[in-house]
Amino acid sequence: MIKGKNGSKIPRVVIERLPRYYRYFDWLDNQMEKISSKRLGELMGASASQIRLDLSYFGDFGQQGYGYNIKKLKQDLTNILRINTQTNIIIIGVGNVGRALTRYRAFSRAGFNLNALFDNDPSIIGEKINSIKVRDVKDLKNYVENNNTSIAIIAVPKEAANEVSGILLKSGIKGILNFAPIDLNLPKNIPVENIHIIDKILALSFMIKKQ
Amino acid sequence: MIKGKNGSKIPRVVIERLPRYYRYFDWLDNQMEKISSKRLGELMGASASQIRLDLSYFGDFGQQGYGYNIKKLKQDLTNILRINTQTNIIIIGVGNVGRALTRYRAFSRAGFNLNALFDNDPSIIGEKINSIKVRDVKDLKNYVENNNTSIAIIAVPKEAANEVSGILLKSGIKGILNFAPIDLNLPKNIPVENIHIIDKILALSFMIKKQ
Repeated sequence: MIKGKNGSKIPRVVIERLPRYYRYFDWLDNQMEKISSKRLGELMGASASQIRLDLSYFGDFGQQGYGYNIKKLKQDLTNILRINTQTNIIIIGVGNVGRALTRYRAFSRAGFNLNALFDNDPSIIGEKINSIKVRDVKDLKNYVENNNTSIAIIAVPKEAANEVSGILLKSGIKGILNFAPIDLNLPKNIPVENIHIIDKILALSFMIKKQ
Repeated sequence: MIKGKNGSKIPRVVIERLPRYYRYFDWLDNQMEKISSKRLGELMGASASQIRLDLSYFGDFGQQGYGYNIKKLKQDLTNILRINTQTNIIIIGVGNVGRALTRYRAFSRAGFNLNALFDNDPSIIGEKINSIKVRDVKDLKNYVENNNTSIAIIAVPKEAANEVSGILLKSGIKGILNFAPIDLNLPKNIPVENIHIIDKILALSFMIKKQ
């Protein structure tokens, strides 16, 4: 359970909204000095009260009658999200998605260091992709245990995803970003974020056909 | 507003959960014949009542004391999501993410036909990627208007995303899947689904550091 400044449990949806707040304050910075929760809510498509409640989990930011100081809140969110502190990440599965992620500069810009790639295909093990070596997935557990790896990105086919996540669990990984179109079978204390591309386009497809 | 079978508005979160239900019934099919909402809830990490409520928007599926007939519900969800009906999609932005998506076979497997790619970089316009031609983004509006294009995938840098979405809006696009790390400025009647990879890893990073 992750507790907020006020001592109460921070709901998962609020944590997941936090990077979006950071994006808005990053964008607003240099445009204006302060912003009210009402105006921020209009921009973000949320109510002023939801914004005040969300941010209250992380600190005592706004001032009645003044609003939020943008530069300060941006800096506070940078610290809260620990953007720019170095976090070691690895990718398992060097298919299309895995390869694209090796070139995803937003990771390094936000302080995520991609240190290793893993695959089970002998024809690519040993290859270097963007100067990062593709290792044998057999060495995954050993690597994570010895290289201070915080986050693993799973980009293997769904049939292999649970085997990989099982190895990661045993190796002491701290969190998983999962691109495989399956829900991983892991204990609740391991944070997992899913990016299910196919779910998103199917939901979109449903909406456009219903309109 | 998208209305369900029972006449009430289907909440966006329920629509977004629908592909996940499909995935579970697809997985359960051939494993068993029927499943109770209680057991399905245990598998999916939801309450039985949430499952019954979610599915009730789309039809009268479960039978008291019997549960859900898996094969039938899978077929019903296939029809509801119109999986395998052909939907034309295009990608704007042929960088790392855009290129990876051209090879993403899950799209074609679910009936999404990728027909065109667009970019503004003269050095790649005219190139073929997986036998799909990269076109000049100047031709985007004209293309969408004349080629029955339902969904556009935005994979351009965030600085260009709103210009692109503005063109798509004018061209009559029906829905947008947005990978740019910015919220698009579009009227509410255009369905948009966002895949903000960086938000996901930042939320994950916050959670692991708090534990």
